[in-house]
Amino acid sequence: MIYLDNAATSYPKPESVYIEMDKCLRTYCANPGRGSHAMSVASAVAVTTTRERIAKLLKIEDSLNISFTKNATEALNIAICGSLSPGDHVITTCMEHNSVVRPLKTLEKYNGVKLSIVSADSFGRVDPQDIRKSINKRTKLIVCTLSSNVNGIIMPVEEIGKIAQNNGIMYLIDASQGLGSVELDVNRVHADMVAFPGHKGLLGPQGTGGLYVSPQIKLRPLMRGGTGSRSELLYQPEIMPDKLESGTLNTPGIAGLGAGLEFILKNGIDKIRKKKDELTVRLFDGISRINNIKMFSPENMEENSGIVAFNINGVDSTEVCYQLDKQYKIECRAGLHCAPLAHSHFKTIKSGIVRLSVGCFNTNDEVDFAIQSINLIAKGYKN
Amino acid sequence: MIYLDNAATSYPKPESVYIEMDKCLRTYCANPGRGSHAMSVASAVAVTTTRERIAKLLKIEDSLNISFTKNATEALNIAICGSLSPGDHVITTCMEHNSVVRPLKTLEKYNGVKLSIVSADSFGRVDPQDIRKSINKRTKLIVCTLSSNVNGIIMPVEEIGKIAQNNGIMYLIDASQGLGSVELDVNRVHADMVAFPGHKGLLGPQGTGGLYVSPQIKLRPLMRGGTGSRSELLYQPEIMPDKLESGTLNTPGIAGLGAGLEFILKNGIDKIRKKKDELTVRLFDGISRINNIKMFSPENMEENSGIVAFNINGVDSTEVCYQLDKQYKIECRAGLHCAPLAHSHFKTIKSGIVRLSVGCFNTNDEVDFAIQSINLIAKGYKN
Repeated sequence: MIYLDNAATSYPKPESVYIEMDKCLRTYCANPGRGSHAMSVASAVAVTTTRERIAKLLKIEDSLNISFTKNATEALNIAICGSLSPGDHVITTCMEHNSVVRPLKTLEKYNGVKLSIVSADSFGRVDPQDIRKSINKRTKLIVCTLSSNVNGIIMPVEEIGKIAQNNGIMYLIDASQGLGSVELDVNRVHADMVAFPGHKGLLGPQGTGGLYVSPQIKLRPLMRGGTGSRSELLYQPEIMPDKLESGTLNTPGIAGLGAGLEFILKNGIDKIRKKKDELTVRLFDGISRINNIKMFSPENMEENSGIVAFNINGVDSTEVCYQLDKQYKIECRAGLHCAPLAHSHFKTIKSGIVRLSVGCFNTNDEVDFAIQSINLIAKGYKN
Repeated sequence: MIYLDNAATSYPKPESVYIEMDKCLRTYCANPGRGSHAMSVASAVAVTTTRERIAKLLKIEDSLNISFTKNATEALNIAICGSLSPGDHVITTCMEHNSVVRPLKTLEKYNGVKLSIVSADSFGRVDPQDIRKSINKRTKLIVCTLSSNVNGIIMPVEEIGKIAQNNGIMYLIDASQGLGSVELDVNRVHADMVAFPGHKGLLGPQGTGGLYVSPQIKLRPLMRGGTGSRSELLYQPEIMPDKLESGTLNTPGIAGLGAGLEFILKNGIDKIRKKKDELTVRLFDGISRINNIKMFSPENMEENSGIVAFNINGVDSTEVCYQLDKQYKIECRAGLHCAPLAHSHFKTIKSGIVRLSVGCFNTNDEVDFAIQSINLIAKGYKN
């Protein structure tokens, strides 16, 4: 089996992730921050360790400004719904995931929020000046993905951040794709908020994610409940990260994420990026040489986070992925990847797109086998 | 180490939970419901299996009416915030957790919802007639816990359900405490919604939980995002369970929860309840014989879900738990247990309460050692 669906969930994880999760579950998994007994403290230490590793990765000064969530979707909903009010204007791009688009469209429809969606070129490149031109005096927030989950295009998040900063506008980055191999320094990109999942490039398990919130930003929480802090209060405490972390945390998941982050910090982002770039270039070159193929991903690895998106002309993406799975045991993703605006932009709403996404544990042999398999499938359609 | 903090997180889990989670992570953990490849399908099967086991446990006809959440807090926030509108009246009890109280108090303060909080007797017993008397023509929702997380008192959820049904009022049960050993048949108790965590009595890992929503109820979702279904829509699809399950699910956690549920369904709730009752009776009897002790839990096991709550008179609960942990390696919980209304009721806001909560894997020897240890600690304060 060849796994090329790392943009959905990275697989496999470093061995240390499996070991740490099992160790946590079997030996110390109590409630972090709720009790003072030894297991509860050990759980809190695991959570804190992971929080500090994320802070290190993103160059965040105080790790307490990071709240853990179940996935990036929760983090994005907290950031978007917790910061916008009726009358506010928000700018985003046509390359965003439904975890950004659906909350924004709902606020637009029911809560008096105005929405501008900036378009892109044929490879999904957004011009920061288009964002600048969309700013008006009610603009409260700019939301942009670090990298598209459809075709891997890396966004000009630093340039957009400068525009946001110069105009005093809050800036939220959806770091779901790319984080772990694409550098993200919250200060350099002037991000006020960064939402991230744990189960993709950070090499942790599903059920983890988080939201960094700059100390200047005061969000309304999405959920309220037990925080283990100020339990006597009948309202949510304002203290971070508790304010956005109601209910029992996923300690084994967060411990596993900590091991994933340790792997990344030890190896270094550059090394992981280099490995992914080599695999992606090889895959891109091989597939683009096949006849009757349309490529949607950028060829230059400086603007690609590790995705090769393509279609065999005239063939539905689900058919291609079905054959890759059934005949060649290659696991990849067809359809719309929960990003309908990008597919409208690429004119692929009906066909979807075949998406191959590499991880740092893929091999050249796997890539070569995938290219050969796609070649054979494409030939089948020429007959 | 003796673990008596099962009301926070059950520990240990059945061996099958550890095995299933590790197997999931190592062999098939892709995105359930997102792709059609073999691993994605295997993940979807794991999620469906767990969903069906919960349905079996709660006697829910169609398992698709259960959405997975990260914990009970998320489920309660979805149920409460998604069902109430300005002008609505809601009734709850003084024995609720902050995961019920804080969302309700916030809706009362900012969203024009009216709130009635029904009191209880000295052991936290709520009279269903007090709930009936609080009903007015704007009453939209009744929220009640299955069992108190402070002292274990089991609530008259069936009688309250009948009152809710007779008055055409939505009924939400917080099944955080007791589920897995206390019987809960959604039809018999007339529950419209049931929120539950996976990591307590259901013997699954942290990071799991869910919400059952009767097909008659249409909730507004708390979060919007990718659902893997109807990806072309810019708004959240109405289909359950997707509507309330945005973003990647915690597949390894849900697989582990499935193993926990399998253990419960195989052994039977009655057997687990019997074991917990025996341990709780033994613990209760032993502690109540110690001089200078005030008991807060009900003695009759028919109305206790497995908690022995007490204080050594005049001694702060955190001091007692500290000694139990440091001197005797007994893990239990002090403080307010995120239920301030119950502590106001018991007049223990300052001292907190010492809470020992048994699980089905505790032994008589552990219980006896805990009793001896508490006896020694209590003697220390008499000098």
